[in-house]
Amino acid sequence: MGAQGTHRVNTTERLAKLRELMKKEGVDVWVVPSEDQHYSEYLAHCDERRGFISGFNGSAGCAVVTLEKAFLFTDGRYFLQAEKQLDDNWTLMKQGLPDVPTWQDFLHKNLDGSLKIGIDPTIIVADDAAALRKNLEPKQSELVLLRNNLVDEVWGTDRPPKPHNPVFHLDEKYSGQSFTEKIEKVREILEKEKAKAVVVNMLDEVAWLFNLRGSDIDYNPVFFAYSVITKDSTVLFIESKKLDEAARKYLGDAVEIRPYEEIFDYLKSLPGALGLDGSKDGPKILVPNKASLAIVESISPSPPSATSSSSPPPIYHKIVPSPVADLKAIKNATELEGFRQSHIRDGAALARYFAWLEEALNDGKEVNEWQGAEVLENYRKELVLFKGLSFTTISSTGPNGAIIHYSPDPKDCAVIKKEQIYLCDSGAQFLDGTTDVTRTWHFGTPKPEEIRAFTRVLQGHISIDTAIFPTGTTGFVIDSFARRALWQDGLDYRHGTGHGVGHFLNVHEGPQGIGVRIVLNNTPLKPGMTVSNEPGYYEDGQYGIRIENIVLVKEAETPNNFGQKGYLGFEHVTLCPIQTKLVDISLLTEQEKKWLNDYHKEIWEKVSPLLKNDTRALEWLRRECEPI
Amino acid sequence: MGAQGTHRVNTTERLAKLRELMKKEGVDVWVVPSEDQHYSEYLAHCDERRGFISGFNGSAGCAVVTLEKAFLFTDGRYFLQAEKQLDDNWTLMKQGLPDVPTWQDFLHKNLDGSLKIGIDPTIIVADDAAALRKNLEPKQSELVLLRNNLVDEVWGTDRPPKPHNPVFHLDEKYSGQSFTEKIEKVREILEKEKAKAVVVNMLDEVAWLFNLRGSDIDYNPVFFAYSVITKDSTVLFIESKKLDEAARKYLGDAVEIRPYEEIFDYLKSLPGALGLDGSKDGPKILVPNKASLAIVESISPSPPSATSSSSPPPIYHKIVPSPVADLKAIKNATELEGFRQSHIRDGAALARYFAWLEEALNDGKEVNEWQGAEVLENYRKELVLFKGLSFTTISSTGPNGAIIHYSPDPKDCAVIKKEQIYLCDSGAQFLDGTTDVTRTWHFGTPKPEEIRAFTRVLQGHISIDTAIFPTGTTGFVIDSFARRALWQDGLDYRHGTGHGVGHFLNVHEGPQGIGVRIVLNNTPLKPGMTVSNEPGYYEDGQYGIRIENIVLVKEAETPNNFGQKGYLGFEHVTLCPIQTKLVDISLLTEQEKKWLNDYHKEIWEKVSPLLKNDTRALEWLRRECEPI
Repeated sequence: MGAQGTHRVNTTERLAKLRELMKKEGVDVWVVPSEDQHYSEYLAHCDERRGFISGFNGSAGCAVVTLEKAFLFTDGRYFLQAEKQLDDNWTLMKQGLPDVPTWQDFLHKNLDGSLKIGIDPTIIVADDAAALRKNLEPKQSELVLLRNNLVDEVWGTDRPPKPHNPVFHLDEKYSGQSFTEKIEKVREILEKEKAKAVVVNMLDEVAWLFNLRGSDIDYNPVFFAYSVITKDSTVLFIESKKLDEAARKYLGDAVEIRPYEEIFDYLKSLPGALGLDGSKDGPKILVPNKASLAIVESISPSPPSATSSSSPPPIYHKIVPSPVADLKAIKNATELEGFRQSHIRDGAALARYFAWLEEALNDGKEVNEWQGAEVLENYRKELVLFKGLSFTTISSTGPNGAIIHYSPDPKDCAVIKKEQIYLCDSGAQFLDGTTDVTRTWHFGTPKPEEIRAFTRVLQGHISIDTAIFPTGTTGFVIDSFARRALWQDGLDYRHGTGHGVGHFLNVHEGPQGIGVRIVLNNTPLKPGMTVSNEPGYYEDGQYGIRIENIVLVKEAETPNNFGQKGYLGFEHVTLCPIQTKLVDISLLTEQEKKWLNDYHKEIWEKVSPLLKNDTRALEWLRRECEPI
Repeated sequence: MGAQGTHRVNTTERLAKLRELMKKEGVDVWVVPSEDQHYSEYLAHCDERRGFISGFNGSAGCAVVTLEKAFLFTDGRYFLQAEKQLDDNWTLMKQGLPDVPTWQDFLHKNLDGSLKIGIDPTIIVADDAAALRKNLEPKQSELVLLRNNLVDEVWGTDRPPKPHNPVFHLDEKYSGQSFTEKIEKVREILEKEKAKAVVVNMLDEVAWLFNLRGSDIDYNPVFFAYSVITKDSTVLFIESKKLDEAARKYLGDAVEIRPYEEIFDYLKSLPGALGLDGSKDGPKILVPNKASLAIVESISPSPPSATSSSSPPPIYHKIVPSPVADLKAIKNATELEGFRQSHIRDGAALARYFAWLEEALNDGKEVNEWQGAEVLENYRKELVLFKGLSFTTISSTGPNGAIIHYSPDPKDCAVIKKEQIYLCDSGAQFLDGTTDVTRTWHFGTPKPEEIRAFTRVLQGHISIDTAIFPTGTTGFVIDSFARRALWQDGLDYRHGTGHGVGHFLNVHEGPQGIGVRIVLNNTPLKPGMTVSNEPGYYEDGQYGIRIENIVLVKEAETPNNFGQKGYLGFEHVTLCPIQTKLVDISLLTEQEKKWLNDYHKEIWEKVSPLLKNDTRALEWLRRECEPI
């Protein structure tokens, strides 16, 4: 995500100020990761520290500033953008290229001497910091943890304010479960794990747990907060004035509200309050594996000097995959029904937009990518329960479609061309669900190779949609279904096939997903999980193709049940036609043809009733849903 | 593998003798793993120690004998057999069931006190022993390494002699590469790894490396030997009289022959001879990760007491995946052509047998499973370059086909029934290749559910056969292709989809394979590798279905080459009809029908010329190869 900006910032003064502060604090290096305190994928503007100090505002990267030099580490998706945005103060480190170290390895492999490496412990994951510390040991380099973030000091009054947006209660007719029931389930996990407390650090997990929503981060209906659950207490760390009256009433006496900043002091006193003994096998405080070093250091502080201690320091915490993430990933019946309903409405807006766009292009009107996205957003705004977009709309013509993280710059974007493939990836937040859908259109005469690639992508999409698999199967194992048809032609795509999707929450959520990252092999797909199904193909400089639906994991009806474990499949909820003009029917099996016709019939039945007042969209939908 | 014996041995006397020896040696526990010195899958009879001491002769298991009790650990494949074979002295430990520990965990979790646990270091893998030692530490239990295997002492003169079978040279017209070239490649790896030597401990690797073959182990044309390669020397540890004159002449002066038993003394002196300094980053001797503890202890002996040492002991070795296994796995053009040719001949024997069997059953003759296997073997014996079977033939009628490791007992096996599914998994060793093929037949009228399951298995088989995938893809990733069609019906199978196959060597070889074991995700499939493609379905108590071909990995021709890495596919070499009577054609796609017809056409063209003298087989082949 993030705009493909070309704006170059002069960072000379910023770096000079930072180095001054570094000298004052006695550190040789200052590290600026991308993360906020909650390991959020999308950041509030006040947390875009790496963007501020380096000028590079892509979503992934890490800045390493020494007293003499400055290095910006990022991956292949962002080489071009970083080259455009970084000024001469910076050396771009292209991670993934041979002989280019990660920023972590760089600190102990490429920098000489014993160094004091400063970092803000609230924005580095504890496990990552531990690995880093271990690698730094042989050179006697060390991490220096500074809670006053030096970049924030440089930023000063220009730094955007921390958001203070209101937090509201999501009615149980949408969430389907009271927060007290959810907390009861968390306590069952504590019981099972023989643990005494759990820290909740991810913003979407806090929002889900308390049936609260906010708007502190664009596109993500979350708010800055932490929570700690023990057997007897539920503490929500939040700026209390954010909670509106209904939210406060909803939480009632069951939840203790404390100031956001108090989390660390609270955690410091928690082992004592819980009577933990710090022994190896004693009860622990569960800490999610994406929690910050500051959280872990608050619970189990490092001994003052690693060498002087004779006995091992007490350990009061245990790092685990977040139990709340696992609970949240499995949607309840109300949430699933909300997904279905919100996708019907979303389908109406999509039909209206694509019908409008087709007519506009046929009429020779000039529509640029950003204008197209605006029209789509306006149609969505008319929908009931609409609460905003779920991410920046990707509206891209021709070659721009091959840039996977493209989004049009309102001031500088391409005009949508009738004779180029148009790729549109968009989504919305509704009170009853979150949508994320990609469709690829050709409004003129597609080239044979475009039709061929589109058909292969479609076959991969259908293969996931129709897959049945035994309970226990992971998204890593079925990913190859999405690629098989493309591979037959020597084609592939360099992204995952599907990400988890939150319920009126982040459009990307874990731990579930379909893809080639081995970590996805740790999470079996379970009934009630939601994932996207989005194979694609990208021809650099030419076009991009992606077909994306959201699917729900559900129990499958099979004539047998070998192994007695039950079989699972998917239910698609996205309802938008797939352009048959781009399909080479001769490549499809009978089963695939039937799937496409059945899908279009379903769309027509569910979405057409919502288009009574838009004849153009209705006629467009009728035509696009015709059987092949 | 291994006969499904029901014979029960009285082990009272054996155990009493063993315990006497244990007391003499001062050990509280004696461990009897299944392995020989070379981690062979198949054992010479003299190495079947666990079978001797426990009476249980399945292929997988470990015996743990204390001064009072005796425990036999095995997995679900062998519960039934072990229950039948173990006498009252033994407690069967069903590994894989809840709360049943592995034998390793059992030693530190279930046995009380600080124990001296005796084991023969030549038959336990070094890495496994290291993990074991670590777990034993907290209880101050320890491994006691005894080179005089106590079970061998108990066995005494009844122990079968170590085989002394002759070793012969495999002509380069079959191996395709001189042993000096192979050793040159090994030395290139040493150079690349900055290592000074490599130990070759697996028997098939030694055989492959020197273009030698033997017959010390049934079905595996290998011989007992080790090798050590340094930059300047090539040492073969073998009982020298085994080498026939041609073999000796072939090796010439390039290879130093030393007695088999000298390997350990040689390794003891090797670090000194190579001038290794034992430092952390210094040059090392490469030791394959399946080498025994005895090998590692010879190179880098453990310090006399773990607690008394102040500085870390010198380390002269480095454990790695066997470099020879990786070289061997990729067959050269001669070996690949040998695979093709040997499979054509093998196809003729298969056609003759299945035609004979069909006629016999139609004529109402009584043929039992073992007799069937004999007829097949006799047809194979007539083939040129035939050197024996590659494993015990699985010839199984009805319910026996559902027992995956079944092989008929000549004295006690079922009569093949015309109205039951017949599963035959068999293979041969030829000078030019190794075969392994499974076909499933119904000589009467198959039931609808049998047809349905067979068709699903066939679809999985075709899906692997026709798969195309980018370079770098592993057999773990494509395994799901073989299961997809079965999963659609709620069916599956509890074994891998494909194993590596040696070239006139072991029918099972690593590291390549297709399956669900995560270790298979470490080995990308590469051109020249050979694997089996053998999905199946097993209905307990009813029937077994498996369709197995050997396929070669080769470069695929694709219209595109996304990522510039090249795409790969398979070439099947097995040539035996797949019974169309068992196929529900309505379930097949047009592509699948075409595959089946093309395959049968290919079989007819390649195999029919070899059947000129067997009209019955020729007519059978003509009919079975008719298009659907």
